[in-house]
Amino acid sequence: MTDQYNNTISRRSFLTNGAIAAGTIAVGGGVLGAFNLNSVRAADEVVQSWPLPYVQLDVEKAKELGYWGYMSSQCSYGAFDAVLSQLQEKVGHPYTSIPADMMKWGGTGGAGWATLCGALIGASTAINLVVGKDANTLVEELYKWYTTFPFPEYMPPAGKAGKAEGKLVTSACGSVLCHASVSDWCSVSKYRAEGKERSERCGRLTADVSAKTVQMLNAYHKKMFTPVLKNAESVGECMTCHGKGGTLENTRGKMDCIQCHDDVDTNNLLGHIKQQWNL
Amino acid sequence: MTDQYNNTISRRSFLTNGAIAAGTIAVGGGVLGAFNLNSVRAADEVVQSWPLPYVQLDVEKAKELGYWGYMSSQCSYGAFDAVLSQLQEKVGHPYTSIPADMMKWGGTGGAGWATLCGALIGASTAINLVVGKDANTLVEELYKWYTTFPFPEYMPPAGKAGKAEGKLVTSACGSVLCHASVSDWCSVSKYRAEGKERSERCGRLTADVSAKTVQMLNAYHKKMFTPVLKNAESVGECMTCHGKGGTLENTRGKMDCIQCHDDVDTNNLLGHIKQQWNL
Repeated sequence: MTDQYNNTISRRSFLTNGAIAAGTIAVGGGVLGAFNLNSVRAADEVVQSWPLPYVQLDVEKAKELGYWGYMSSQCSYGAFDAVLSQLQEKVGHPYTSIPADMMKWGGTGGAGWATLCGALIGASTAINLVVGKDANTLVEELYKWYTTFPFPEYMPPAGKAGKAEGKLVTSACGSVLCHASVSDWCSVSKYRAEGKERSERCGRLTADVSAKTVQMLNAYHKKMFTPVLKNAESVGECMTCHGKGGTLENTRGKMDCIQCHDDVDTNNLLGHIKQQWNL
Repeated sequence: MTDQYNNTISRRSFLTNGAIAAGTIAVGGGVLGAFNLNSVRAADEVVQSWPLPYVQLDVEKAKELGYWGYMSSQCSYGAFDAVLSQLQEKVGHPYTSIPADMMKWGGTGGAGWATLCGALIGASTAINLVVGKDANTLVEELYKWYTTFPFPEYMPPAGKAGKAEGKLVTSACGSVLCHASVSDWCSVSKYRAEGKERSERCGRLTADVSAKTVQMLNAYHKKMFTPVLKNAESVGECMTCHGKGGTLENTRGKMDCIQCHDDVDTNNLLGHIKQQWNL
């Protein structure tokens, strides 16, 4: 935070004028009835303190919420709602002021672009809503788990499936990207990418991600969470040169490098360098 | 929405018990003072209606908020806060109940994994907070613009930069992925990926994305938004076979295919097929 920020951004007056103590809830304007912009000015309001208060949630309920949230509004909404709606029910305000619909954009990895898996977009946001400085430790653990987990595990009760009944082929895709995750499952299962079975698979995957998220959040808030998973091997190898402090230091990230780049023989780095530089 | 959803998810009682009319604001419990879970039950609360009410925002202010938000808490927070904090100031509740910190996880493309650019994660969430069924049209336009825009354009006043002063080299990276966006800019600028210049570049990029987002939101809410940009050429070509309705239909997405996959000579599709199947 710099002086420039304080000088130029009048929003800071929220934080300096309002007495926000850790563990207290900042309260809105108490507006009743029809919405009227003029009657709801922010001058006398303080911004919600963060992270929001957490209570232990139900893992099995998270699976159902994630699954049916997917069937209603895709993966990102499903995973976010699996956490949020339980907190709306158990805690109420301020969760009731946050609409799960705001995360719908994450469906199919971001408006259909198939970048970061939408279930992870929704789950990451849910985690960060209730976890402060340690949020990325949980998010990273979720991502590492995702890359190695053979989705889908969840199975709805017989006769109650949203898109397709029965057991589905599983695959661990090695990537957090929707594009790779779907392609890998289609390759293994032989189902079509826009078919009802693939959609069912993503619904069940959303249930699995939602459950894992709630398991981690419950453990973290009981001070029983310890990250245990490692990055893909290629990340450590490639980032020795390409990452922070490396000779090249020309990129960032923790996705498995060799899913998009050619594998490199670590016994022949000279050959790799020559190839990259056309020598 | 299915009967299964209504049967299993008690959260639905929020929506059926509360009289939520379009255009009205649902109000929280009106809790004052210290937070007490027992006193804030959701039974008598209704969930915030969505999308949230929008007022015209300041594009120049969005740049400053995005830039200094990045300097404080990275790209995703910066872009989200550039919209949210203006609405907190101009509208107040329910925006004051939503903490911008919840989007910090998106920094460096998701907890450091360099997937979807964090500025786009924050901006997409901001868009979806205030736009309903058309949200993905705006998000997609933003993504297409992002892939072709020579970042960074924004420049802080002389002597007021957060990380590094002066003009910076620009590059249009062709991708919405942080990993590709950073790598491309490092390749063009010759700066290191973890250096202050790259960080400055991402701060300015966050300002640019924030401004574009507010421009689009302002236009949309004045009924003056029309999407005009097209997908990368390879998407149309490759998805003819690999996408919906294609012979293979084995993937999803709209990222430029040839950034990660070999380019295909459309006059020699047989050769492409033989290569893929090792024939």
